[in-house]
Amino acid sequence: MPDDKQTKFLLDEAELPTHWYNLNADLESLGVEMAPVLNPETHEPAGPADFEAIFPEALVAQEMGTERHIEIPEPVRDVYRLWRPTPLYRAHRWEEKLETPAKIFYKYEGGSPTGSHKPNTSVPQAYYNAEAGTTRLTTETGAGQWGSALSFATQMYDLECEVYMVRISYEQKPYRRVMMETWGATVTPSPSEKTQAGRDVLAKDPDTSGSLGIAISEAVERAVQDPTTKYSLGSVLNHVLLHQTVIGQEVQKQLKQAGAEQPDVLVGCTGGGSNFAGFVYPFLERHVDGAPKPRIVAVEPTATPTLTKGEFQYDFGDTAKMTPMMKMHTLGHDFVPPPIHSGGLRYHGMSPQISALLDAGVIEATSTPQIPMFESCEEFVRAEGILPAPEAGHAVWGARHEALKAKEAGDERTIVFNLCGHGHFDLSAYEDFRAGELEDFALPEEEIDESLAAVPSVE
Amino acid sequence: MPDDKQTKFLLDEAELPTHWYNLNADLESLGVEMAPVLNPETHEPAGPADFEAIFPEALVAQEMGTERHIEIPEPVRDVYRLWRPTPLYRAHRWEEKLETPAKIFYKYEGGSPTGSHKPNTSVPQAYYNAEAGTTRLTTETGAGQWGSALSFATQMYDLECEVYMVRISYEQKPYRRVMMETWGATVTPSPSEKTQAGRDVLAKDPDTSGSLGIAISEAVERAVQDPTTKYSLGSVLNHVLLHQTVIGQEVQKQLKQAGAEQPDVLVGCTGGGSNFAGFVYPFLERHVDGAPKPRIVAVEPTATPTLTKGEFQYDFGDTAKMTPMMKMHTLGHDFVPPPIHSGGLRYHGMSPQISALLDAGVIEATSTPQIPMFESCEEFVRAEGILPAPEAGHAVWGARHEALKAKEAGDERTIVFNLCGHGHFDLSAYEDFRAGELEDFALPEEEIDESLAAVPSVE
Repeated sequence: MPDDKQTKFLLDEAELPTHWYNLNADLESLGVEMAPVLNPETHEPAGPADFEAIFPEALVAQEMGTERHIEIPEPVRDVYRLWRPTPLYRAHRWEEKLETPAKIFYKYEGGSPTGSHKPNTSVPQAYYNAEAGTTRLTTETGAGQWGSALSFATQMYDLECEVYMVRISYEQKPYRRVMMETWGATVTPSPSEKTQAGRDVLAKDPDTSGSLGIAISEAVERAVQDPTTKYSLGSVLNHVLLHQTVIGQEVQKQLKQAGAEQPDVLVGCTGGGSNFAGFVYPFLERHVDGAPKPRIVAVEPTATPTLTKGEFQYDFGDTAKMTPMMKMHTLGHDFVPPPIHSGGLRYHGMSPQISALLDAGVIEATSTPQIPMFESCEEFVRAEGILPAPEAGHAVWGARHEALKAKEAGDERTIVFNLCGHGHFDLSAYEDFRAGELEDFALPEEEIDESLAAVPSVE
Repeated sequence: MPDDKQTKFLLDEAELPTHWYNLNADLESLGVEMAPVLNPETHEPAGPADFEAIFPEALVAQEMGTERHIEIPEPVRDVYRLWRPTPLYRAHRWEEKLETPAKIFYKYEGGSPTGSHKPNTSVPQAYYNAEAGTTRLTTETGAGQWGSALSFATQMYDLECEVYMVRISYEQKPYRRVMMETWGATVTPSPSEKTQAGRDVLAKDPDTSGSLGIAISEAVERAVQDPTTKYSLGSVLNHVLLHQTVIGQEVQKQLKQAGAEQPDVLVGCTGGGSNFAGFVYPFLERHVDGAPKPRIVAVEPTATPTLTKGEFQYDFGDTAKMTPMMKMHTLGHDFVPPPIHSGGLRYHGMSPQISALLDAGVIEATSTPQIPMFESCEEFVRAEGILPAPEAGHAVWGARHEALKAKEAGDERTIVFNLCGHGHFDLSAYEDFRAGELEDFALPEEEIDESLAAVPSVE
């Protein structure tokens, strides 16, 4: 163990960030151009009205605005206090095991009530909705991580919460459902009889196991029908990503404590992009202000290679083509990812902001199959104690990869990664891994080509 | 929300306790007399030799010694740093919901790698064993909380770990098993073919679902047979309880931060007594030094009413009568607790120290059925976000009970309780609760009488 044994870098509540950072304000300085969001039917640039049927005004303003720093309302900070600021750890034991000269730090977001970074945005989303007179929020969930976060947040502001949970997950993963219900949410297996979208699917295929695309359609339909019901999304959109910037702001203060203010590499995992953005965006702001820019690496599953194999083009956010069209890295909205265990990363698209950052060369992207990812996680948990969620495991794998490169180079680099959630609800995945029952899916390129061919061309 | 919004009281690693507190040193000042531990066969007072077949010398010395402060070895503190010091929370939102003038604080031990206070002792136990040349530790586990803690700790010092897991839990609760294996432990369903004790049981009843008593016998047998294999216990014994005193020492510093240095009531749950002891003992030391003694309340399930209905007499620690006899509150070593969901509290006996403290009037004890306990937990998680383990839920219930008494009295009391673990692996219990499928067992007094009648009388 190194001489400096400090393992955790903590911040007092007094150091809880007071503002979120809005990357929109600095895209131009970073040489990044964003294509406008388009109305899904007219293909004309979308305006606030296109969003206000399902989101409250304050969130639409954040989605489209360019104000650099947005004040975090006090009632949101009061709820953040339940778990924020979160700790930054120095991975002394893992460094030793890897015999790397690199210093590895990780931010841990798994200590939140729901076990991931998701409440960083579910809480303000619930707050702004409550302020706007919304009485009920709807959303979809796959494995249940996002549904849990919204169930918790709505409870904090006395809103009702209606979660559409993909039927196969509802049946196979009852524990996340119980957690959501314990926070007072209503959880409905999707497709359901509650919506036209659900009834249509059931009429054709009564035994369907459901999909995230259908669940989104049901949640959105409920929001459109009732003026005091709104819809809430857990990733991809700008306002969601900006709420997550509390993560990176805290990391900067904590790295300063640790005497490692200028990290060399930042590593995060990407599904829709929210934990990654929240972690790295504040470093881009500093870069605009003259600080050196670390290498920034996004890690995704090779089975859902949005950034590494997808096209940067206009596409829909959902299978049912109800959302506006956004220019992003996509595998095609019809793409059905292989059944890997990182449910949170099984998304055909990617945040338009992150897509544009990659396109402009501001960030890098790489991918890993799931078996080496779980191998990294097992090594990590044996050294550091914390059991990573498989999604977060991609960042663990990425940090390990960087640490071994540093070892090869004999270079004392500072590597920081975001451990965005714990794996307490993912032990069946670890069980399959240990039993040698996991597959590393070699994704046929034709499948992506086919799926992309179905996307209407927009210039 | 009160004006003072601070929710978490944190300590830097520099404030990690440097010593454990040994209550043995102060029992006399507290007016508490301990009866000697007896050899199970001769009924003569047991000496170090009676323990050294299964525990290393250093731990036996801690078990029997009266040194007030025992220095925590640096390599143990290095591992503690992975999660200690743990936070103390002020339950602002729950206070508001209860409309109580009381101030409620809770210490949260669920942020440890295994999700409870158990690693506070598994880590030093593994360390002292490694120092003594032990190469393998054995233990038993029911639901898996203690087995997880030992699996993690042995991994930190490169020891092998052999866990005997009650067969029915092994089959019904695979996730804790996977967690133990991920930390590198070997987990064997008990009874097994690996031991004489296991083979004997299987010969008579090949389809037995196993019991904690049998699992203890198997783990102890393995330790006795091999000089470099030792056994490790997760509660009840003095050395285990003293390792937990890091909890209460931190609480005292944190209450000082919060301006609540002299709490009125301390509440903890009791099974074998270790989280309770670790939390309250440092307050008894201060009392010896002249500080006012808070009321100290132990809460147990009415279905396993060791302190509230058991006799204070000599009994064995295990069903198979292999352990030394100890004077303690007991329901009789043959007692089989009803199948309540708080597996960690389903023990027939109690720490002899805690038993003696109750007998001397230093602490109080009360009990609750499981349905009101789960009701308290649901209210708590909706206010505070953290999902308590059912064991810890007894402390939640007890704190609520005290807060409502304070409300009735219009009295601004300071109540502190120990939330010793999270409930991420207990969601099937919450599911049964929400589905109305839980029973509140009315324990027939005859059953206890019968079980106690089977204990050999020792004067």
